[in-house]
Amino acid sequence: MNTYIEKNKDRFLSELFDLLRIPSVSADSKYKQDVLKAADFIKDKLIAAGAAKAEICPTKGHPIVYGEKLIDPKAPTVLVYGHYDVQPPDPLNLWSSPPFEPVIKDGRVYARGSCDDKGQMYMHIKALETILKSSELNCNIKFLIEGEEEIGSDNLDSFVKENKDKLKADVVLISDTSIISEDCPSITVGLRGLCYLEVEVTGPKRDLHSGIYGGAVANPINTLCKMIASLKDENNHITIPGFYDDVKELSAKEREELNKIPFDLSEYQKELDIEDIEGEKGYTTIERTGIRPTLDVNGIWGGYTGEGAKTVLPSKAYAKISMRLVPGQNFEKVTKQFSEHFKAIAPKSVKVEVLPHHGGEPALIPTDFPGYEAASLAIEEVWGKKPLPTRDGGSIPIVSLFEKVLGLKTVLMGFGLDEDAIHSPNESYKVDHYFKGIETITLFYKHFSAISKGK
Amino acid sequence: MNTYIEKNKDRFLSELFDLLRIPSVSADSKYKQDVLKAADFIKDKLIAAGAAKAEICPTKGHPIVYGEKLIDPKAPTVLVYGHYDVQPPDPLNLWSSPPFEPVIKDGRVYARGSCDDKGQMYMHIKALETILKSSELNCNIKFLIEGEEEIGSDNLDSFVKENKDKLKADVVLISDTSIISEDCPSITVGLRGLCYLEVEVTGPKRDLHSGIYGGAVANPINTLCKMIASLKDENNHITIPGFYDDVKELSAKEREELNKIPFDLSEYQKELDIEDIEGEKGYTTIERTGIRPTLDVNGIWGGYTGEGAKTVLPSKAYAKISMRLVPGQNFEKVTKQFSEHFKAIAPKSVKVEVLPHHGGEPALIPTDFPGYEAASLAIEEVWGKKPLPTRDGGSIPIVSLFEKVLGLKTVLMGFGLDEDAIHSPNESYKVDHYFKGIETITLFYKHFSAISKGK
Repeated sequence: MNTYIEKNKDRFLSELFDLLRIPSVSADSKYKQDVLKAADFIKDKLIAAGAAKAEICPTKGHPIVYGEKLIDPKAPTVLVYGHYDVQPPDPLNLWSSPPFEPVIKDGRVYARGSCDDKGQMYMHIKALETILKSSELNCNIKFLIEGEEEIGSDNLDSFVKENKDKLKADVVLISDTSIISEDCPSITVGLRGLCYLEVEVTGPKRDLHSGIYGGAVANPINTLCKMIASLKDENNHITIPGFYDDVKELSAKEREELNKIPFDLSEYQKELDIEDIEGEKGYTTIERTGIRPTLDVNGIWGGYTGEGAKTVLPSKAYAKISMRLVPGQNFEKVTKQFSEHFKAIAPKSVKVEVLPHHGGEPALIPTDFPGYEAASLAIEEVWGKKPLPTRDGGSIPIVSLFEKVLGLKTVLMGFGLDEDAIHSPNESYKVDHYFKGIETITLFYKHFSAISKGK
Repeated sequence: MNTYIEKNKDRFLSELFDLLRIPSVSADSKYKQDVLKAADFIKDKLIAAGAAKAEICPTKGHPIVYGEKLIDPKAPTVLVYGHYDVQPPDPLNLWSSPPFEPVIKDGRVYARGSCDDKGQMYMHIKALETILKSSELNCNIKFLIEGEEEIGSDNLDSFVKENKDKLKADVVLISDTSIISEDCPSITVGLRGLCYLEVEVTGPKRDLHSGIYGGAVANPINTLCKMIASLKDENNHITIPGFYDDVKELSAKEREELNKIPFDLSEYQKELDIEDIEGEKGYTTIERTGIRPTLDVNGIWGGYTGEGAKTVLPSKAYAKISMRLVPGQNFEKVTKQFSEHFKAIAPKSVKVEVLPHHGGEPALIPTDFPGYEAASLAIEEVWGKKPLPTRDGGSIPIVSLFEKVLGLKTVLMGFGLDEDAIHSPNESYKVDHYFKGIETITLFYKHFSAISKGK
């Protein structure tokens, strides 16, 4: 390992712990002050690491932190993107230790955001420090660290559009994804898009006694269940009209290639403690999570949910529903398709509201441009193997934003693992990946500068 | 109105208010002390009203209050049943005034329990006082006031069995039901039974990121929705095998009689603000709530239900499901049928737990015995019209318990109205019905004693 990183391990970790202690949950307004505190923290640490400039840029929502270290107008420029906000920690009772009190156990840092994305984002700040203190920086670096990634990056779009010059670069570098395993490093080249909505079904205008009215008045929970159930057919195909129209089907050869990724189904089932997998007929697990769109209920609630029994026929029932989209699909079109369909299937006995939360476009990234090549070399140097290109089930909507507005390709060089349990209780990140990630990033700049010069 | 009631109106109301201020929610253990406080209150007020004896009888759960005023071993004996516990007040945000701070508005007392059953039960205590202070008591009266009605009267069964002698009587009198309207008084002669269960569906052992796993792993919320949806077919018949086997079908003539009850569908829809009703094909609204079994989801929850969006594929989803049963059906048999069916329809990709909460048998009461006749005469005297016998959708499981263990018929002489919104936010009870109810009860004793002597 790089000697400078080796020497500063403890401090690098303790700074990350300080960041993880700030509960910067962007989805919940009660954490607003903490989100601001996290932004300040990032700004200060950018300066401390050697950035020439760092600033808090207000938006209509949570602020964006911008920082830069420019060495030479002729050198290639890398735009580093990351986010300092985190997912809500619920359900709290399933955490083994408090989500905002980081601890190390079995070589992992446990805390909300340890991997997604504070841990991975902070590697970039420490990589900047490492290069400046121990070798030579051959690239210009710009940092764009936002606070709304977990709620759809609502204000990033206009910020990027209004700051095209400021954000001018040659490539975008993001660490917010996973590798297949330590023995099998990978770079994500496909991302699913996202369409997230909330639905509200109203039956009678007030809660009713289920004995007096039950059987004669539509129960909005039963109705919501029926409507949700009807969104997939017996083969787990999504039934929304037109939903698959724009899906780009892969060729037989592409599918064959994709399925070469090492995958052990029995290990997968064992790790999740499930007796059977379930998904769209005709596709493998790798395909179902990589190249096929999905529909999941992320939350549902209605009626009496307390202890014991209450014989209520409730007035309202709610659900949060999201769809993962694949290349070809457009989240605005899918939002419209879902909303229209969901209203169309509602019986006259209830009223339905559909509230779009946010969305993001799917993305496909090539493997033959300098950014990818630099990442591939850097990973091979640190992890001992050439990384495989993979398609990820998750969504990083800003990848298509950077492509459209700035004309930039993105390198998704993340070091998470499936078992990091991001978005779940007991999220964690391997301590070792944190340090190896910092080292890999320093080498990325070296290779990117060399390849860029050579071209 | 009876002069004694007229003179003591304010005090009768203020005592009821004191009782309503005690949040005796039996379903939620955090109210345990309040439940005990309510039991003490009832005991004290029985003595104050003139009962010769009143005592708190401990059970494995909340205590039962027993009281008596015995005048003559040869006089007929009436066993008054009521309950001092109330439904949980949730959802709190829909109450116009706090549920445990009673207020009078437009001639109604607003508070949790104002009708069900504190208001109606307390009429009996005030009726005892009224008779003793202003006329002559010709019956022995025994009071059995429990604290677990809203959670299934789990401990009443053994109490009644162990106290057969103490509870010996000629009839049971209960005020815990409604009349059709002020212009159309009624006595409930049919009650539905109840079978209440909670189900838990587990998918993966931990919450997952819906991007990484979505589409490949069963989502327990989607699965629960599908399972619930399948419990009714396109005609809203319940699909649980054997569910209807024991349902006693009514004859065409009986159905014709039943449908003579005044009912205005457009008024019903308007009051509930629904564009359409919904229920089992082939039956009217009166039949759907009176003589047909039902299945309602009373509560559902799972995944992220907070503000904003969280892209989680949750580990677990839950629902509280209850079925109203009709004469012929047995709640233990239905509990078994439901549990077996619900487990049978679960796909291998999830695990299912079914936890029975409580149940109660349906009941049918004749209209040709002294108790019913006395109630009919008392109501006619106070309300100006002979009451109609009706079938109620709700459940009072103890009616069949009294029949089986004590060999007693029950008179369901309640004075609620549909719009009292029992079990709902803003529960209320008409002030006028409270006083008229007290008067009707005093007259019931007069008529019951006279009819019993005449026989």
